[in-house]
Amino acid sequence: MKIALDAMGSDARPAPDVEGAVMAAHEFGLTVILVGDEAKIKTELAKHDTRGVDLPIVHARSDIGMTEHVEAVKAKKDASMNVAMRLVKEKQADAFVTAGNTGAAMAAAIAGPYLLGRIKGVKRPALTSTFPTATGRMLLLDIGANADVKPEYLYQFAIMGAAYAQKVMGIANPRVMLLSNGEEEGKGPTIVRDAFVLLKNSRLNFVGNAEGRDIPKGSADVIVTDGFTGNVVIKLSEALAKTLVGFIRDEIKKRPLAVAGAALAKPAFDALRNRLDPAEYGGGILLGVDGVVIIGHGSSNAKAIKNAIRVAKESVEAKVVELIRAGLE
Amino acid sequence: MKIALDAMGSDARPAPDVEGAVMAAHEFGLTVILVGDEAKIKTELAKHDTRGVDLPIVHARSDIGMTEHVEAVKAKKDASMNVAMRLVKEKQADAFVTAGNTGAAMAAAIAGPYLLGRIKGVKRPALTSTFPTATGRMLLLDIGANADVKPEYLYQFAIMGAAYAQKVMGIANPRVMLLSNGEEEGKGPTIVRDAFVLLKNSRLNFVGNAEGRDIPKGSADVIVTDGFTGNVVIKLSEALAKTLVGFIRDEIKKRPLAVAGAALAKPAFDALRNRLDPAEYGGGILLGVDGVVIIGHGSSNAKAIKNAIRVAKESVEAKVVELIRAGLE
Repeated sequence: MKIALDAMGSDARPAPDVEGAVMAAHEFGLTVILVGDEAKIKTELAKHDTRGVDLPIVHARSDIGMTEHVEAVKAKKDASMNVAMRLVKEKQADAFVTAGNTGAAMAAAIAGPYLLGRIKGVKRPALTSTFPTATGRMLLLDIGANADVKPEYLYQFAIMGAAYAQKVMGIANPRVMLLSNGEEEGKGPTIVRDAFVLLKNSRLNFVGNAEGRDIPKGSADVIVTDGFTGNVVIKLSEALAKTLVGFIRDEIKKRPLAVAGAALAKPAFDALRNRLDPAEYGGGILLGVDGVVIIGHGSSNAKAIKNAIRVAKESVEAKVVELIRAGLE
Repeated sequence: MKIALDAMGSDARPAPDVEGAVMAAHEFGLTVILVGDEAKIKTELAKHDTRGVDLPIVHARSDIGMTEHVEAVKAKKDASMNVAMRLVKEKQADAFVTAGNTGAAMAAAIAGPYLLGRIKGVKRPALTSTFPTATGRMLLLDIGANADVKPEYLYQFAIMGAAYAQKVMGIANPRVMLLSNGEEEGKGPTIVRDAFVLLKNSRLNFVGNAEGRDIPKGSADVIVTDGFTGNVVIKLSEALAKTLVGFIRDEIKKRPLAVAGAALAKPAFDALRNRLDPAEYGGGILLGVDGVVIIGHGSSNAKAIKNAIRVAKESVEAKVVELIRAGLE
């Protein structure tokens, strides 16, 4: 298997990107094609043990920064993101991975010079995130590809999400919920109410509306929403977790005995941090495009990149594109 | 000042409701009219020291349960919520407070048999919540009155929220933000993009789009959104805080040394709990109706009821209704 990695993706590119690729190549035994500034990539590669692994470099003359506008995808045909996407489009790679600008990555897949395009029948691709819950993990989509949606889009997100949860996350008969502002049918904006009807009459294991509280509770395996709300949910959750940990730290610092206590409790806090660590999950898949596209966090470290590559590998192995094609027929 | 309290509001009614009223009457020196089942209220009152405070009872023959449909407001004219609202409508009380069914309370104010109606010029009332942030407190609205909105509604929410933040929360020149899925102008669904233009051209201290992460960070004093998203934000935040504390507890329990440490750190955790305790803030005001309407959490304890009454008192003193009337002219 060959993964095309945008080596100029993360905030600290290309160091974590290259290190993560080396880790993934060793651990998973696959080829990672490093796309980006050849000289910089070589400098990073020289820092690691690359014996016995396959890490070819494909040079890209430019890259797209985190704050650049999505239009850059069309303007910079030779950006690392576009070149990596081209490798997938031309079947020289099985999947695309980046920790770069999310909007640009989606644009590269959907509307860029080397766009993969949508799977036949897909109205809109959706970006996903897996979310740690009280009982395990949950798939949330859309988290940002579509600010405006229609009921049929939400319905398709549910079909795509359920297929992914079942085959890649290994959840038999995933419970699907629709995010709303009340449990009962009939709650929510018109679009959500109409989507409820579509989902209720589908063959999915649709268990009803989810409220905000159902997200961390783990009431569902797949929660479907529009890209506006999903984006707010993801960014709020990340920030809230940080703020709460900051609150605890503040309160502990005020109390000498609590400082001693916190030192003893540190391994428990470290375990919590691991449980919440986005690096454990690597990246989210862009479902609905005709290829495997994984988009990670800009703040990705090497472990996050490695895990994003793992998600790509598992998605290729599970034949996600074929699954969705079949699911929508 | 006279506050009409729906004494049959909270999940554990009327015990916390009556106890909170007694506390408020003592602490704030105001009259709390207890509306509900007279016999039950008397039983509760007998448990407390009511010397020197004014706590008249107005009997109501029925009440509206937490799981009842909003239609109950019209069907049960003699429900405690309706009777308490009538006291405000007939100027026998200065404000209405309940910890009951949120949907029913809003309906009682907007469309019930004793509706207060909207302030002239208000397109839609909005329910608010004050939110603990890293730097203080923030006002979020709408959190559930309007699942579907228009740009002008969001614009009016901003005007009403800013007036409340300034006069009741005491924030000079409150920073107003619009919740979206990206910082830049042009991000978000069509409705949000159009609202951005209205806000940018207003006389408000509008500082741009907020992302989900700005909510706990305290980037704004007032964040405006539709009632669907606001409701998800509030319910997600409450549940996420609980889940995180649960995660910490789980991890601590696994480790004997951490258990000892946590015991030492307990005062810090207690302080955190206080900081997050919804009882500190009592209830949210329903802005835009022609009267002061405060709606608390169903799980309110006596302290929460007392603080909801405090919010009512402060809102009456600040002349919130007149402020909004003037702000919209």
